[in-house]
Amino acid sequence: MTLSLQTILKQRRQRLAEKFPDKALLWSGRAPARNFPANTFPFRPSSHFLYFAGLFLENAVIELEQGKLTLFMDNPSSESILWGGEQPSRDDIATEMGADRAYPLAELSPTNEEIATIALFDSTTYQEQCHYLQRTIPQPSQATGKDLALIEAMIDLRLCHDEGAIGEIRQAAEVSIQAHQAGMEATQAGKTEAEIRAAMEAVMIAHNQTPAYGSIVTIHGNVLHNHDYSHTLQEGDLLLADVGAESKGGYASDITRTWPVSGQFSPTQQEIYDLVLAAHDACIAMVAPDVEYKDIHWQAARIITKGLVEIGILKGNVSDLLANDAHALFFPHGVGHLLGLDVHDMEDLGDVAGYAPGRQRSERFGLGNLRLDRALKPGMTVTIEPGFYQVPAILNDPQTQETYGDVINWERLQQFSDVRGIRIEDDVLVTSEGAEVLTAPLPCQRDKIEAMTLIP
Amino acid sequence: MTLSLQTILKQRRQRLAEKFPDKALLWSGRAPARNFPANTFPFRPSSHFLYFAGLFLENAVIELEQGKLTLFMDNPSSESILWGGEQPSRDDIATEMGADRAYPLAELSPTNEEIATIALFDSTTYQEQCHYLQRTIPQPSQATGKDLALIEAMIDLRLCHDEGAIGEIRQAAEVSIQAHQAGMEATQAGKTEAEIRAAMEAVMIAHNQTPAYGSIVTIHGNVLHNHDYSHTLQEGDLLLADVGAESKGGYASDITRTWPVSGQFSPTQQEIYDLVLAAHDACIAMVAPDVEYKDIHWQAARIITKGLVEIGILKGNVSDLLANDAHALFFPHGVGHLLGLDVHDMEDLGDVAGYAPGRQRSERFGLGNLRLDRALKPGMTVTIEPGFYQVPAILNDPQTQETYGDVINWERLQQFSDVRGIRIEDDVLVTSEGAEVLTAPLPCQRDKIEAMTLIP
Ligand SMILES: [Mn+2]
Ligand SMILES: [Mn+2]
Repeated sequence: MTLSLQTILKQRRQRLAEKFPDKALLWSGRAPARNFPANTFPFRPSSHFLYFAGLFLENAVIELEQGKLTLFMDNPSSESILWGGEQPSRDDIATEMGADRAYPLAELSPTNEEIATIALFDSTTYQEQCHYLQRTIPQPSQATGKDLALIEAMIDLRLCHDEGAIGEIRQAAEVSIQAHQAGMEATQAGKTEAEIRAAMEAVMIAHNQTPAYGSIVTIHGNVLHNHDYSHTLQEGDLLLADVGAESKGGYASDITRTWPVSGQFSPTQQEIYDLVLAAHDACIAMVAPDVEYKDIHWQAARIITKGLVEIGILKGNVSDLLANDAHALFFPHGVGHLLGLDVHDMEDLGDVAGYAPGRQRSERFGLGNLRLDRALKPGMTVTIEPGFYQVPAILNDPQTQETYGDVINWERLQQFSDVRGIRIEDDVLVTSEGAEVLTAPLPCQRDKIEAMTLIP
Repeated sequence: MTLSLQTILKQRRQRLAEKFPDKALLWSGRAPARNFPANTFPFRPSSHFLYFAGLFLENAVIELEQGKLTLFMDNPSSESILWGGEQPSRDDIATEMGADRAYPLAELSPTNEEIATIALFDSTTYQEQCHYLQRTIPQPSQATGKDLALIEAMIDLRLCHDEGAIGEIRQAAEVSIQAHQAGMEATQAGKTEAEIRAAMEAVMIAHNQTPAYGSIVTIHGNVLHNHDYSHTLQEGDLLLADVGAESKGGYASDITRTWPVSGQFSPTQQEIYDLVLAAHDACIAMVAPDVEYKDIHWQAARIITKGLVEIGILKGNVSDLLANDAHALFFPHGVGHLLGLDVHDMEDLGDVAGYAPGRQRSERFGLGNLRLDRALKPGMTVTIEPGFYQVPAILNDPQTQETYGDVINWERLQQFSDVRGIRIEDDVLVTSEGAEVLTAPLPCQRDKIEAMTLIP
């Protein structure tokens, strides 16, 4: 039986009250103007607001105290109804979300009462927050006192997803899987990256979902955050697609697949692909309650390092190479991150969400990019996304060459020039029994390649 | 021969210098955060900046003085190159745009010198503007002194498009036409509005363009600014699609077509469609230099009123009905607007762009929504978009019923209940000879219906 929105939200605020009994005010924010105010980007509320409000309510504020929810927002204006049609009233919305009280925004007056909040990055809303609470609200990563206590309670709540959140992530994952299938089917030499991206995002739009983050669809997979889609696919290229949808309720999915444009890996591509896939599978197999996520990261690093030694790209003893961060030459990022209302969940709060109390981000090459260092708990959802990349900014760096010149077999590496970047990423829910791959029905590449060759 | 970007930009700043010889500083702005700073909406620079900079440069400032261009922006950080790959340096960009000088942002220091600017709506950038210019910059519609002089010069320049701008609008129009064709082809009873929107926006994404504004794809065309896509198309419905792409250089197109889901209008739909089409065609035929755009608006109003009297929906004398704004009961918006870097070009400046000096927006029903009241000049690009709508907020309003109850034949209107909303919109360039419809190759609906019935 699926819980109603009212029930889900009520449970969330009751759980908040146990951890944070004081009053909190959360702002939803506004759609940012796309050059002029009447033409905006799509509205996306603050994730903290959305966690308790459940609905995409623009320019609204909720007050939470002892499990009670008060909604502050204005009714649609007659102008807005004239141009935008019939819209739910404040009372309709209050009923839908199960609010205890609902008032116009004008009832929210500036106060000296010490009320906790979380700063938004949208400056207009931030200024309103400071105005109503009559103080300079620190950025979330600098919060102190009640604000910090609220943030810590939010992290406690949002780290482990409830049934409502998991249902939303499943919906995002389902559409993302279809998007990747559409991308694989659309792939053909002579098309552009943009055309494959279009095929993938069209699936989201058709389901009234949106990309959860800027899609990466590139034959230059070594550019980790590539938002250029202008290249033409060539036979022999690998296409890396890191594309995930956001559900109607605002939850993210995050999937990466890397497939050969021709439908067939070259022998060198196959070798590296199998290695990344082995790391991916082994890491997913480790996901379970109480497992340290950092150990999963090191598992990926170990498998990749061992494989690269066997292939002959890295030279030396695996343990020594790992101790010297040599794996980060080809796998410079972390093995994944929290997933929830944000694709990097709660990254607005800084490392206080991703890192357990008392832990700090390392400064080591590679490890310094690990976004999550906590013991896993049921309800957490994480990505597992090992990769292999030849990043010119790393490999051509004189300091890299001085430090690692001796452990890289440059001649051997040269033979793998058709492997610019490979990443395989899935979304994994920690369950009390172990783990469930939420993005599971999407075949890993090998199956798909077989299927692709069947396409006439 | 196509002019180079350098030549286009140089001509623009030389023309600015003739109208505004003093120093101006224009900011590009930043991509707004989508809940957390590392996850942003796509970046769209301020249109005023873009007009002189030509490129989508985030967090950049240009200084314009006597035809000279100085660029202030930072080189990509090593962090940014690590994750985002090789990127052009400040000097590369300065060369591409033909800047006379280029400095890092740090060279821009707060000054008491009286320098003109135009405020952005992005608060973060706005605060920077105020900081550097050491004053509270008024919103564009409240500007005075040098700021106002700069705004007036910008309007003079941007009202009439140069070759570069027209080329960009053509590119946006071409992709928008393909998007509408894809939408018509995808239309089928049982699909959702979202699926048709997906087919249309996929065309833009595939061409590395973006929607210039939030697409309207709806079977409830009477909701003028409808951004809901959840309904299922039924045989007998009309689908209204107001969908336009933005070119890579940031110029907008804006097209509306209304077509029957079944491929065949009902007799009532056909009757109203033909009326709106007649207004559309007659208005486009009027577009020429020195013609008052307001007269085109009244032409649309007159044709629609006359037609509605003939059909029997309105009762009375056409001139009296127009004098009493009765046409606005069914055609409540203006016949169109300026088109350029913004879909409602320069609407950030308020009516000072749309309304000729000395003219003010009327408070009359219908006419009060006219966005443009100027004599047309070669180079101007305007939309022509008459429509017919049954808006409940208008027709059910007691005041409407009191004022207009006698001129509406409610029984006759009842027979047209399958015509919720029809709009036909094209983009028209004023030329020295008359006009050119930039969105012309897209057939008006009748041709398409014939084509649709041919689809097996
Ligand atoms: Mn990820
Ligand atoms: Mn328009």
